[in-house]
Amino acid sequence: MITPDHVATETDDLVSDHPADQLLAAIDRVGSPVCVGIDPVLERLPEDCLVAGEPLPSIDRFCRGVVEAVAPHVGVCKYQSACFERYGAAGVAVLEGLLAHAERLGIVVILDAKRGDIGISARHYAAAARGRAPWVTVNAYLGTDGIEPFLEHGGAFALARTSNPGGDALQRLELADGRSIAEAVADLLAEAGDAHLGASGYSALGAVVGATKRADAERLRTRMPRQLFLVPGYGAQGGGVDDVLPCFNSDGRGAVITASRSVIYAFDADGGGAWTDAVGRAARQLATEIADGLGRS
Amino acid sequence: MITPDHVATETDDLVSDHPADQLLAAIDRVGSPVCVGIDPVLERLPEDCLVAGEPLPSIDRFCRGVVEAVAPHVGVCKYQSACFERYGAAGVAVLEGLLAHAERLGIVVILDAKRGDIGISARHYAAAARGRAPWVTVNAYLGTDGIEPFLEHGGAFALARTSNPGGDALQRLELADGRSIAEAVADLLAEAGDAHLGASGYSALGAVVGATKRADAERLRTRMPRQLFLVPGYGAQGGGVDDVLPCFNSDGRGAVITASRSVIYAFDADGGGAWTDAVGRAARQLATEIADGLGRS
Repeated sequence: MITPDHVATETDDLVSDHPADQLLAAIDRVGSPVCVGIDPVLERLPEDCLVAGEPLPSIDRFCRGVVEAVAPHVGVCKYQSACFERYGAAGVAVLEGLLAHAERLGIVVILDAKRGDIGISARHYAAAARGRAPWVTVNAYLGTDGIEPFLEHGGAFALARTSNPGGDALQRLELADGRSIAEAVADLLAEAGDAHLGASGYSALGAVVGATKRADAERLRTRMPRQLFLVPGYGAQGGGVDDVLPCFNSDGRGAVITASRSVIYAFDADGGGAWTDAVGRAARQLATEIADGLGRS
Repeated sequence: MITPDHVATETDDLVSDHPADQLLAAIDRVGSPVCVGIDPVLERLPEDCLVAGEPLPSIDRFCRGVVEAVAPHVGVCKYQSACFERYGAAGVAVLEGLLAHAERLGIVVILDAKRGDIGISARHYAAAARGRAPWVTVNAYLGTDGIEPFLEHGGAFALARTSNPGGDALQRLELADGRSIAEAVADLLAEAGDAHLGASGYSALGAVVGATKRADAERLRTRMPRQLFLVPGYGAQGGGVDDVLPCFNSDGRGAVITASRSVIYAFDADGGGAWTDAVGRAARQLATEIADGLGRS
């Protein structure tokens, strides 16, 4: 909000409030298109975080520590909704607090909820996401009428190609016209997304493209030139730098590479000092690795 | 649990705790394979339910009234998670109370959450559903490894063919082998479901098949002989009795026909007496209509 004593900054001039522009600005701030996935599991938390054997206060403390440790290196964090929903309403309350905490640190938040429904229900899910996170992940199987409501006040990454073994069973099937099912989804997203472009030229409708499918990524990038790609599976799930480079456009933009376990549990392998130091180092390494791969550093 | 003073009943002998067997028993109890969809929207509640302008207490009161009114006629209720999630953690808490309330009334509950994720996240979602509802709706785009965790302690209806206009864009596309994408999903479900059969011969892995696609329903029924079909879209969404009959097997079993708005807002069209009476009458009419269509009455 512009108030009388508001001092204009460079950022005010350059960044619109379009979700794609905001995401790209967060990437530019840290100099690397990376994201940390926050998928907390009680059994893997460091001892320092355990609060009297209570799962939710422990998870809350851990997530705050992780985000504060990675914020200097990473502009985007993705929260796995399932890890909180498993604790019912109390878990959802903790998640809401964490999303607000990350935004206060200047992090652009993606709520990884993979929602998908039709009509009025999709509008309810969009209302649930609104005000909690500027970006949410969605499922496109119901068609774009299940996605449009999410784009009214925010951005959505729709599942195109997932990195799990079972994803092949459906997503790689060949259509009569020669496309794979994942490519047909890509074409739907590209078309629907063109009504939601930001000043950057990228759409508020992005795509999830798993990092373990290099050949797929190349083809999907061609079909979706104006979609931001959210690329999970980097690190622990097996993808490497070479696998994710085809997710970018030729100008080095257009993708956000996400690592989760290899960063948030980095203290398991790196025992020196506080656990948050190990997490921060892993985030910095992730950012450097991807920036180097893109020839930026 | 069998305790020393437990008195055996007919039900103990006949019904296993397999989710498909439990669902069929609930249908047999009322004599009609119908389900009421609980999709509450604040703007449509009757005045009697409004609690001091507070959305959640009003919705809570309405849903309890609906379920108590329909319970004599309907064995199954489906709760639309989105309608509660839009109110954040407080909404999820109300939903949890409502699911427990319905189960106390002997209703088999389906949590319509359309969840879908992979690996550890799918296990978290399954844990969230467990203990809240015996059945949950899921999305199969990620493959069956995203569905298996839901079958460990309950049942899941996976989206095969949806009744919304946008569903056609993907689900009707033809594969190189001549199947539609919905049929390919059906084949995945049929195969994965065979490891989870109950004493009734039906699987804990069912399918959502929209009621507005008669020809599709016939083909999907053939491909999925052991799947229970959850059939939304009856009534308000345009499907009629003739459209849903192909969803049943030749023995008149295998499907659950779901109506939502035409039952829960029946008082809009039927102003006589208490609003709950109108809802009860609409539920009875739904049950009779479907039972008549199946030639049972």
